[in-house]
Amino acid sequence: MNVSLDTARALVAKDLAAVEKKMQKAVGNAYEPLTEALQLLIRSGGKRVRPMLTLLAGRFYPPDEPQKLISLAAAIEALHTSTLVHDDVIDGALLRRGKSTLNAVWTPSSTIMAGDFFFARAAGLVAKTEHPRVIKLFARTLDVIVDGELRQAFSARDWSQPKESYYERIYGKTAALFELATRAPAALGDAPAAHEEALRRFGYHLGMAFQIVDDILDFTADEKTLGKPAGSDLRAGIITLPVYFYIQRPERRQQIVDMIESHPTGDPIVDEVVTIIRNSDAIEQAHDEARAFVNRALDDLANLPAIPARAALADVARYVVERTF
Amino acid sequence: MNVSLDTARALVAKDLAAVEKKMQKAVGNAYEPLTEALQLLIRSGGKRVRPMLTLLAGRFYPPDEPQKLISLAAAIEALHTSTLVHDDVIDGALLRRGKSTLNAVWTPSSTIMAGDFFFARAAGLVAKTEHPRVIKLFARTLDVIVDGELRQAFSARDWSQPKESYYERIYGKTAALFELATRAPAALGDAPAAHEEALRRFGYHLGMAFQIVDDILDFTADEKTLGKPAGSDLRAGIITLPVYFYIQRPERRQQIVDMIESHPTGDPIVDEVVTIIRNSDAIEQAHDEARAFVNRALDDLANLPAIPARAALADVARYVVERTF
Repeated sequence: MNVSLDTARALVAKDLAAVEKKMQKAVGNAYEPLTEALQLLIRSGGKRVRPMLTLLAGRFYPPDEPQKLISLAAAIEALHTSTLVHDDVIDGALLRRGKSTLNAVWTPSSTIMAGDFFFARAAGLVAKTEHPRVIKLFARTLDVIVDGELRQAFSARDWSQPKESYYERIYGKTAALFELATRAPAALGDAPAAHEEALRRFGYHLGMAFQIVDDILDFTADEKTLGKPAGSDLRAGIITLPVYFYIQRPERRQQIVDMIESHPTGDPIVDEVVTIIRNSDAIEQAHDEARAFVNRALDDLANLPAIPARAALADVARYVVERTF
Repeated sequence: MNVSLDTARALVAKDLAAVEKKMQKAVGNAYEPLTEALQLLIRSGGKRVRPMLTLLAGRFYPPDEPQKLISLAAAIEALHTSTLVHDDVIDGALLRRGKSTLNAVWTPSSTIMAGDFFFARAAGLVAKTEHPRVIKLFARTLDVIVDGELRQAFSARDWSQPKESYYERIYGKTAALFELATRAPAALGDAPAAHEEALRRFGYHLGMAFQIVDDILDFTADEKTLGKPAGSDLRAGIITLPVYFYIQRPERRQQIVDMIESHPTGDPIVDEVVTIIRNSDAIEQAHDEARAFVNRALDDLANLPAIPARAALADVARYVVERTF
């Protein structure tokens, strides 16, 4: 299924390369060990789904200066990557995508500063758009992201939380930035309000689906693919959608809570819980929700002009629910 | 000498109250424990020198909408306060201004997130100016601040560093934000370039003096006033100006290095080093440099229109070198 993402990527390949260059340059010209560490971090980066969305969404109403769209896409991916730096300190994670985190090499203090620095440069990139509303949307998104992280931290081990809490959290964790990635280019290109709204909704629905699938893969993918032990959220007491569905039956809830609460995270019994959930109907229930979100995202696209970027965005949406890593 | 700051404060008292309100509001409407903690942090805040400078500097060329200057001043003080949150995590500080830090009450992880959140709201405040150049200056300043913090962390215990390293570090630590505080209002009010430059230089020189005096007070003020043990930077191996001057004589350097390097920070021998430096001529040498910076700041003011705010800025400058806490 990876093929479909390739088609979308090909459509904006030149711009994606420019985004990559811009991110590398953005962390340059600083204290040398810091620049080196952050450039390495950027090079080891992920699938670039967010900047791809920004570049595709920017095709509907291109800004007066094409460089502004590149800066925006680089700002969004830089914001994403900089939040990962602090996340790794917060989680004490030494591995991400199977590679050493900055946190594993530097002291926690230096890593906090490196995250701050990277964020500062992301803010510098978005300032380059010189578009007050885009800058405001960016600031507001950062706000939602951190709010989501805090809610996640404070809601851990609350086994009776409603499904809405989960949705609120993954909005902050993922969907808010997806929403920004598809909406901000419309704002930058002064798109008609209805088209900006369609792109915003598309990004929102896609982001929700993306995080649900991530949370499913945390149970179904193997440790090598994940680059970390399966069920890591559950180990930290974070209730994701598969867990939520599994514990809806009271006797199951009691079983899971007892097993998790009375054993340390590294205990083999926790692996057993992960296996139980992996083999349960909760996975398919969660997948149904992800598919429903993607269908809503595809509906949102119907309101937009039928340019090649629209078909590519649909490909990205389909990829998101079918991906296996 | 505190009287002179009172005169300046009185000139912008109404605006300062609006800044306070705006900061309180900026951290509102979030996850409740977070809002409470940050509102408490803001209430326990310092002398408000930075927003005072912004409001006074804004009197030369007021922006079209007065609220934009209030937002800018609130953004600058919010940025200052949010950097303190991460500083406290980084230093492991449990006290600041004699009061418990957020870090002393919350987990380090939650405190990192709280700092991120506060910073996001600061970015939201500066976005309200809707002035692309002001927003860019703000982003660039954050960048310089974090760069300075990293340089400080990595230059610790380098006993042979040149005086320029110290100046570079305190530019990042303090003067960059003072520079922003006096320059950004000029940019916001579309002041003539020469006047923006005069205000920038004034802020820069004043900020340098301010930090030198802070570093002197770290030796001369008592623990109760400081809210932390005297000589705390030296204990962490950070070489400030009094230390720099003291160790210029090779035999003194050897003595200090031996005493510091071979004893833990809490050791009584470190108190002895603090006393040696406090009673040496290094304090007066550092004070001379602070006075020289303030004189340059006062010279910068001569290039600006003679309005009441100019006299008030001069008062603030004189206060900065004479203050005893």
